[in-house]
Amino acid sequence: MTESAAGQTGEDEIIARYFRPLARHPAAFGLIDDCAALPVPAGSDLVLKTDAIVGGVHFFVDDPAEKVAQKALRVNLSDLAAKGAKPEGFLLALALPKEIDRDWLEAFARGLGKDATAFGCPLLGGDTVRTPGPVTIAITAFGTLPSGTMVPRSGAKLGDRVMVTGTIGDAALGLVLRQDSAVGERWGLSRREAAHLAERYLVPQPRNAVAEELRGHASASMDVSDGLVGDFSKLCAASGMSADIEAARVPLSGAARSAVAAEPAMLERALTGGDDYEIVCAVPAKKVASLQAAAAEAGVPLTEIGVISKGNAPPRFFDAGGKPLTFKQLSFSHF
Amino acid sequence: MTESAAGQTGEDEIIARYFRPLARHPAAFGLIDDCAALPVPAGSDLVLKTDAIVGGVHFFVDDPAEKVAQKALRVNLSDLAAKGAKPEGFLLALALPKEIDRDWLEAFARGLGKDATAFGCPLLGGDTVRTPGPVTIAITAFGTLPSGTMVPRSGAKLGDRVMVTGTIGDAALGLVLRQDSAVGERWGLSRREAAHLAERYLVPQPRNAVAEELRGHASASMDVSDGLVGDFSKLCAASGMSADIEAARVPLSGAARSAVAAEPAMLERALTGGDDYEIVCAVPAKKVASLQAAAAEAGVPLTEIGVISKGNAPPRFFDAGGKPLTFKQLSFSHF
Repeated sequence: MTESAAGQTGEDEIIARYFRPLARHPAAFGLIDDCAALPVPAGSDLVLKTDAIVGGVHFFVDDPAEKVAQKALRVNLSDLAAKGAKPEGFLLALALPKEIDRDWLEAFARGLGKDATAFGCPLLGGDTVRTPGPVTIAITAFGTLPSGTMVPRSGAKLGDRVMVTGTIGDAALGLVLRQDSAVGERWGLSRREAAHLAERYLVPQPRNAVAEELRGHASASMDVSDGLVGDFSKLCAASGMSADIEAARVPLSGAARSAVAAEPAMLERALTGGDDYEIVCAVPAKKVASLQAAAAEAGVPLTEIGVISKGNAPPRFFDAGGKPLTFKQLSFSHF
Repeated sequence: MTESAAGQTGEDEIIARYFRPLARHPAAFGLIDDCAALPVPAGSDLVLKTDAIVGGVHFFVDDPAEKVAQKALRVNLSDLAAKGAKPEGFLLALALPKEIDRDWLEAFARGLGKDATAFGCPLLGGDTVRTPGPVTIAITAFGTLPSGTMVPRSGAKLGDRVMVTGTIGDAALGLVLRQDSAVGERWGLSRREAAHLAERYLVPQPRNAVAEELRGHASASMDVSDGLVGDFSKLCAASGMSADIEAARVPLSGAARSAVAAEPAMLERALTGGDDYEIVCAVPAKKVASLQAAAAEAGVPLTEIGVISKGNAPPRFFDAGGKPLTFKQLSFSHF
């Protein structure tokens, strides 16, 4: 331990040097106080989420620190987006192994600062501790929305259209590629397509741009983090409903389509693999066009993939010929 | 991985079995949604804190899981107390190694539930992940208080009395004892005294009972987590002030007094060692008696140990003979 005359420890110095510059919101008190104090607008609910990512589990320990930071924040922002909440700020609990050096910390703080600005979600406070294990980043993000307007998982109604943002499966296929780069050639991917999949695993693109519109349109919504099939099954279960999904309508990127064409088993991987951080939602039929238009204006692709049906049962996925698909496992789990 | 027909993964099952019973607050939606949605009373600030504890760093991996859970929550509650905030709820990010078994999880959840009830701070949400490292618990706690009334670190004024709750140094000496049980005999501790110190390291006693009174009385306040000397130095620095502290007035338990009598070096350990989770605050002289009375009513010991003085300089600690004390290091740091 090094400690200055004023009692500043190594931890204090790390905070002052790397994180204080990110904490310019008045609620953060420049990170010199014990807590942040955030004024909440009257008539608002505070929407709260914590998600942790662990080196060697949720990212590779040699992933660029800037991207690791972005992923850590974005997996939380994605939940706020799916609930229709406006990001207000976040807290960071960061456990660092001895190997982490100043270059890593600097890049990490840079990535965090970039996204805090881009998503309007400032650092409000945090805790930095030592760990004998891998780097572990637990971020808690806060959003606000008008009281009682959070878009729940549980609101899907019979006949609602099922819609997803962006494309599904890129990150899961990017992970396959990351683990075995020879796969890219087998799938016939161009260098650019391979890079697209790899990047989608590395840094998700949360859909905060459509959060506010979801509030006015969707009856149920959630972000897809553990695989479309398993996550959407949870939305159906929470709503006491089922659904019929046409797998051929699930939006895939060009790269993912190439992978599936070369290796059909990759379709299951894409639909159940996780790390998409897209939004799946149920939208009353009469609101579909309006939400489509709003999403287009926000630059977010939005695709109809099926319909909510009766019965408290897992959703059914059909292939292009109308044959039901079955999956070995519905979603990703570490347990 | 095991997965039920409805797509319930091992993680879902852990959440359902151990944590859902703790999430009875309506804002938690029974942990079935992506986020919690907490209504915040109009005219309130939300006080936010995250603190992480790591197995082998902040607790011993063979500490009872129930106590580990209590410590993880209480280190956060302690910050809310020092700021004058009323606890409203918490989020849990829990990274579990493979070795953790169901007995451990059950005891952990039991400890968490006990304190959530005792401190009126319900579980609102969380994330459970796998780690190849030690068990890591990052809790984010939320409190509320009337807008603009958070007791800051930075408000100490010339002539304010410096006061601390409870006793200082027990946890640091408890850790010494935990590392070398022979020390108990050398210090001449009774079995009960040794158990007292050990317990104070294991489970802190946050001072939420005086939080509201601090708001009306203290000009500056913080919790003592990394050692009285270093933490109080930060309060002085944040306030642009100094202080004169009489070390002999710093409240020590009987067990700690025995340890210091037998081994005078233990005084420095007590004053700089950390894990106290008591409150140190600066109180205008004319409000001291009233705060004393309120603390007594709440059953919280409160002791005057010195006075805020001019000059943006580290506080000075004096021994009973008026000689300045110097310390090898002011506070605990892992870095």
